[in-house]
Amino acid sequence: MQNLETILAKATENQPAAFDRLFELLRIKSISTDSAFATDCVEAADWLVAQLNDIGFMASRRDTDGHPMVVAHSGCKGQHMLFYGHYDVQPVDPLDLWDNPPFEPRFEDSPNGQIIRARGASDDKGQLMTFIEACRAWKDVTGELPGNITILFEGEEESASPSLVPFLTANADELKADFALVCDTGLWDSDTPAITTMLRGLVAEDFTIHAANRDLHSGKYGGPAINPIRVLTKILGGLHDEQGRVTLPNFYEGVPRISNSLKAKWDALNFDTEGFLGDVGLTTPAGEEGFTAMEQIWSRPTCDINGINGGYTGEGFKTVLPAEAHAKVSFRLVGTQDPEAISAAFRSYIKDNLPPDCTVTFHSEDRAAATNLPVDAPEFALAQKALGDEWPNDAMFIGMGGSIPIVGHFQKILGMDSVLIGFGQENDQIHAPNEKYDVRSFKKGTRSWIRILAALKS
Amino acid sequence: MQNLETILAKATENQPAAFDRLFELLRIKSISTDSAFATDCVEAADWLVAQLNDIGFMASRRDTDGHPMVVAHSGCKGQHMLFYGHYDVQPVDPLDLWDNPPFEPRFEDSPNGQIIRARGASDDKGQLMTFIEACRAWKDVTGELPGNITILFEGEEESASPSLVPFLTANADELKADFALVCDTGLWDSDTPAITTMLRGLVAEDFTIHAANRDLHSGKYGGPAINPIRVLTKILGGLHDEQGRVTLPNFYEGVPRISNSLKAKWDALNFDTEGFLGDVGLTTPAGEEGFTAMEQIWSRPTCDINGINGGYTGEGFKTVLPAEAHAKVSFRLVGTQDPEAISAAFRSYIKDNLPPDCTVTFHSEDRAAATNLPVDAPEFALAQKALGDEWPNDAMFIGMGGSIPIVGHFQKILGMDSVLIGFGQENDQIHAPNEKYDVRSFKKGTRSWIRILAALKS
Repeated sequence: MQNLETILAKATENQPAAFDRLFELLRIKSISTDSAFATDCVEAADWLVAQLNDIGFMASRRDTDGHPMVVAHSGCKGQHMLFYGHYDVQPVDPLDLWDNPPFEPRFEDSPNGQIIRARGASDDKGQLMTFIEACRAWKDVTGELPGNITILFEGEEESASPSLVPFLTANADELKADFALVCDTGLWDSDTPAITTMLRGLVAEDFTIHAANRDLHSGKYGGPAINPIRVLTKILGGLHDEQGRVTLPNFYEGVPRISNSLKAKWDALNFDTEGFLGDVGLTTPAGEEGFTAMEQIWSRPTCDINGINGGYTGEGFKTVLPAEAHAKVSFRLVGTQDPEAISAAFRSYIKDNLPPDCTVTFHSEDRAAATNLPVDAPEFALAQKALGDEWPNDAMFIGMGGSIPIVGHFQKILGMDSVLIGFGQENDQIHAPNEKYDVRSFKKGTRSWIRILAALKS
Repeated sequence: MQNLETILAKATENQPAAFDRLFELLRIKSISTDSAFATDCVEAADWLVAQLNDIGFMASRRDTDGHPMVVAHSGCKGQHMLFYGHYDVQPVDPLDLWDNPPFEPRFEDSPNGQIIRARGASDDKGQLMTFIEACRAWKDVTGELPGNITILFEGEEESASPSLVPFLTANADELKADFALVCDTGLWDSDTPAITTMLRGLVAEDFTIHAANRDLHSGKYGGPAINPIRVLTKILGGLHDEQGRVTLPNFYEGVPRISNSLKAKWDALNFDTEGFLGDVGLTTPAGEEGFTAMEQIWSRPTCDINGINGGYTGEGFKTVLPAEAHAKVSFRLVGTQDPEAISAAFRSYIKDNLPPDCTVTFHSEDRAAATNLPVDAPEFALAQKALGDEWPNDAMFIGMGGSIPIVGHFQKILGMDSVLIGFGQENDQIHAPNEKYDVRSFKKGTRSWIRILAALKS
């Protein structure tokens, strides 16, 4: 494809202007969690609509009960692709930990090359702009957009996406495509691109154990009165066995065995366990015995206590026997583990272990099965090949310990799978002060999308 | 003693004026925990000095770094008795739960007779005034005070008594007596007075378990990264065995066996376990197997978790793996259990059970051995007899699950034991809204002190 080289060259030529455009977007304070920035979110949406219309999309701002969506159509024929990104950003607190104002983007030199420093540089404004710049270069050279593309930009990704499901449901016919391209993930390492194909599911349980009808004094009642913190710690302390396995009955039903060939592939990635843990002050993998840290994160389910409180927790000491104690427990799921069954088993386990006079109430809940994307579908191989043409190393199919809710929503509501490709780095400090995006990620990201679209547009 | 009947009659005659005096004291907002009420505390101290001088004591306000003490001497000969009470009161929040303003004392009718409703009515203004009114009636009849009495009123009992130890130490020669009379406890039941002779000791441990150097995301790190809440719950969950016994090595060293004769006496008290627990919404004694609720409270050591927190505990869910988790654990001690040894055993237990990458820091500490007052000393028998002459039933020697720090300070600093006598009722709502004191407690309390002083003054 002779055109491809021309388009890639055009992207390079466009780069100074492309950075100007990105910086314009980065200056907009589109913090979605704080209603004080609602007009900034509208401004970001309008800015994107203008950008997209400028390069030939039919784009519009679509208002919701929350922050607006941006939807755009290329109007071309061929395989239908939905591209997803989000223009909202995380809050910037604590502001005093930023070396420069978070909404005044700037280039900086770093040991690993030039970077762009700003809130949203990596998550997700810099990433979504790689796709827009790819489309722009394509249009500049060919006069057409690169295929049958629908674009969906969300403005509530950092605030739990309250409008997303209603919007997808109400506009399913318009948004349903053959597959989705989602640009909100990272590289494997600076030379190795990645397509994330396994995401762990989640069961989250928020509950309170109740005992006496009020807080008691441990001098007066200590002994005969049941202490709900003691009940809670005993219950939580029994969730794992000595090998770090979860003790709930049938918990491991649906957890796939890692085949020897897959294990060999993963081992070949040379995951830097020491660096991964050392970065956060740890030395020893603490998970299930018999699995490497990477296997634990990508392919093994977990149970973790994410929050606990009860009694007096302030300065000094109060010898209180509290009336209740509270915990938040979450499970990360893999394979075909059933979230409903695991939630039920957990709740039964607690109820079965409650002593007399104790009751439990369950508050919120969050249940999602693990996602295993169909890596044998042709778009995965094509995207993998295209990425390999751009980067020094071949692209890896990788797993991810967390979940990306949009993938599940696209599957459930629009019946389509997602190809998750992104160019973020581990050290981008997303959600933290001094967020950055590598200039190389932006440049090679734009070029990657040009190659991927060339391969997928058919 | 013919005079005794006359003095008792005088106390009855004095009662209308005695209630007026008590109400004056109850109107003073001497909340010691809040510096906004510092002048009220001075006012209460001055009011007491005036009262005591009025009936022939040599009384003075003694300023400290905190709220003032009141010290008074009768100047009489004979066995030297130190009477202790406190004029400060608990805060009144939540104010909207009071049926009437807390500092506007009033008589009310109740199913169990007339009561005085006000903050401090029972704890401790009403109680200390029973002693002053006893002295007043005595003086009115005999022209003399009832024996060699020193009075110490504190204004910081409800705010951890920061000035007490320095004051006792600095004035030890002046305050040291043959024994102390402390009026800050309760009746056994409305017809049965009590002398509290056993107080449990306390070891309080406040500690944090540290893991990673920052909070982690459980999607990314869940599995390989150690979770300090999980470590903490496992450790706390192992502090008791299935029989409710504390698992620390040598924990029960120094715990006295309850003799059959003592057990028989206690059983004869017909402690209302069902009512005691039912009052707070419980039905089943949860302590050590093989002991009654009363035995558990009076004579058995306990271990309780008084506070726990870690991770995200707000609304909704965050799948955080926290960097640390925190708990407050206290032990109630009996007999000759050694607080230092128990603290050391607890700290060793935690350290021995820490997995790799975890550390523990211990913050505050509080250690006091149990108190066992010398019930065979003559003042105990004499006071017991005097109380029995006033009340329908004989006075009981009872235990108490908590500790009263003043008793330990008097033992350590002044080398004297305390006789703990008070007339409060379980339902006095001390430290809570709508505090009250039974009119009967005030009347019979005053008469009780007259009888006790007659027996003890020698």
